[in-house]
Amino acid sequence: MLQPPPAEPGMREEEVDTPALLLDLDAFEHNLDLMARLLEPTGAKLRAHAKTHKSPVIALRQMARGAVGQCTQKVAEAEALAWGGVPDILVSNEVVGARKLARLAALARIAKVALCVDDPAQIAAAEAAAADAGIRLSVLVEIDIGTGRCGVAPGPEAVALAERIAASRHLVFGGLQAYHGSAQHMRTPAQRRAAIAAAADGARRTVEQLRQRGLECPIVGGGGTGTFALEAGSGVYTEIQAGSYCFMDADYARNEEAPPFRQSLFVLATVMSAARPGVAVVDAGHKAVPIDSGMPLVWGRDPDVRYTRASDEHGGLVVAPEARNPPKLGEKLRLVPGHCDPTVDRYDWYVGVRGGRVECLWPVAARGGMA
Amino acid sequence: MLQPPPAEPGMREEEVDTPALLLDLDAFEHNLDLMARLLEPTGAKLRAHAKTHKSPVIALRQMARGAVGQCTQKVAEAEALAWGGVPDILVSNEVVGARKLARLAALARIAKVALCVDDPAQIAAAEAAAADAGIRLSVLVEIDIGTGRCGVAPGPEAVALAERIAASRHLVFGGLQAYHGSAQHMRTPAQRRAAIAAAADGARRTVEQLRQRGLECPIVGGGGTGTFALEAGSGVYTEIQAGSYCFMDADYARNEEAPPFRQSLFVLATVMSAARPGVAVVDAGHKAVPIDSGMPLVWGRDPDVRYTRASDEHGGLVVAPEARNPPKLGEKLRLVPGHCDPTVDRYDWYVGVRGGRVECLWPVAARGGMA
Repeated sequence: MLQPPPAEPGMREEEVDTPALLLDLDAFEHNLDLMARLLEPTGAKLRAHAKTHKSPVIALRQMARGAVGQCTQKVAEAEALAWGGVPDILVSNEVVGARKLARLAALARIAKVALCVDDPAQIAAAEAAAADAGIRLSVLVEIDIGTGRCGVAPGPEAVALAERIAASRHLVFGGLQAYHGSAQHMRTPAQRRAAIAAAADGARRTVEQLRQRGLECPIVGGGGTGTFALEAGSGVYTEIQAGSYCFMDADYARNEEAPPFRQSLFVLATVMSAARPGVAVVDAGHKAVPIDSGMPLVWGRDPDVRYTRASDEHGGLVVAPEARNPPKLGEKLRLVPGHCDPTVDRYDWYVGVRGGRVECLWPVAARGGMA
Repeated sequence: MLQPPPAEPGMREEEVDTPALLLDLDAFEHNLDLMARLLEPTGAKLRAHAKTHKSPVIALRQMARGAVGQCTQKVAEAEALAWGGVPDILVSNEVVGARKLARLAALARIAKVALCVDDPAQIAAAEAAAADAGIRLSVLVEIDIGTGRCGVAPGPEAVALAERIAASRHLVFGGLQAYHGSAQHMRTPAQRRAAIAAAADGARRTVEQLRQRGLECPIVGGGGTGTFALEAGSGVYTEIQAGSYCFMDADYARNEEAPPFRQSLFVLATVMSAARPGVAVVDAGHKAVPIDSGMPLVWGRDPDVRYTRASDEHGGLVVAPEARNPPKLGEKLRLVPGHCDPTVDRYDWYVGVRGGRVECLWPVAARGGMA
């Protein structure tokens, strides 16, 4: 159930077994440095989202460059990070169910942990779990500032929840969770600016109403890879929750004025069939490279070679008649995932490469951590 | 990296932690029995496809009801089955790369193993691996009978490959792989009948040409859950490779005259947010229930409650204004996956339920087995 690593340190990239999750370490480190540099003048801090990478190794590298902590979506991800030495974790999501809350409260003994709520019943359940564990939990109120998923409306409804948290004996009011997910992939800069201006307005108004009731917001969190500069420059967001920036993917690359990061994450695949002219088949279908955000790209070969069709275990490539270098049976190709988050979650190992050689194998520690 | 089981035997279903992969054992056993009954008069045998279930526990239950063996798409799946006691395994796919071939050849000491080819270079590589391991491998020729993926054209090209296999010292010609994947989800019975009639013609013609050259086909394999009755009734197919029949999914249910099996596979999810009227959010997004073949259905609640939007970790439900029983925060709902194969591959454990109680936990032994 745990798959063996597809490579060993020192191997050449073309020796790596496939499909494999490849991390170009130079591009990855460039991305970490660039994000730190971009945020520095804004005063906003990075709390990178670990739902993307699911790895305490990567989390600690982000924190070494100034990130104040990590976000997760799931308790299982928070566990993997805390057990791996990450000291400050926000579950940027509602946590529903006594078993999950007990697991999260248990983590509070080894890390600073926080979670989000959008309903009074969640506050009562978090209070019970914290009391039972004999610890205090930090609780943020999630506000819906445009995505229409979780969260209460900005303003009085959010204030009422914050006051209820502050009045709970084992809870601390941690601030506002104000992530606008659907803005990340709006294609034009104008759309993104308008969306985040409205989001920041809602957050600012709520912060002010809280202050009038004597409640300060230690965290106002939000911002993803598509919009982080807007939240960071808003003057209201204190923490940026970007995840994909360290890897990038084909869908973020489709944004106009795409995020300024390099592609560091790839799925290495082998051409397993080239029986007919004009087409080839690789051994990575949608189980190896999920297609929820579109097909992967063939790195360095587009538009001569395009991945146009994904079945469970096969990727269908169309090869242009004029292609100078059509894929050959047995050849290994780098694919750029359509969406980095679900792609990482398919694998047990990162294969870190630099200069054509395997340098490291990092476990995807929270792989499959959905609970 | 291996997730703990979300339940224990004896628990009530509503106590199972979420998201969880639920197997309704009564429906599952009904499906196994029904397939055995449907194939019995045709003379075609079942070689069930393990890419769907990835479990030797399930494989052995299929074989106890008459299946002659299992198919896999990957060597890693073949390993999990062979190590789990399955004695007869066909990798119904090309296997490219020396490392993969060596692993497959090593399995030949504990199970009967076979693989497919569509290129002379693959035959040479299989011969080298078999010689190196000191065993003989059974090799089938894949023919493309309509899907346009792997496989050579039926007829002379296939015959040439078969003769090359038969002339190889450590290989045995195993027959023809003639699976028509894209026919499985053709929506009308007339489309499926036409597609499989053409496929069977191509297979029959190739079998006859092989016979003229003195080569018999021990296996003519193909047929999935959408069309198996057509292949089984064709008189040319000897083995049926259906996989999904034991679980079913939302996409197969959309076929006109859908396969006659019961839905046995579910993702159990919890309502984690119900902050606004008309919508609710469950803790199963597309990482928990992949959407390559469409959105999941909410079991027993459709059309009052519909799953309309999947993000990484959230499933958005739309609740009809007239719904008598809108989902409540904390409530657990069964989702019918859009596509069973990639959904199973997201989980480490099947939670087998019967009569509202957890009866067993079966590992998804080949979970993530892509190599």
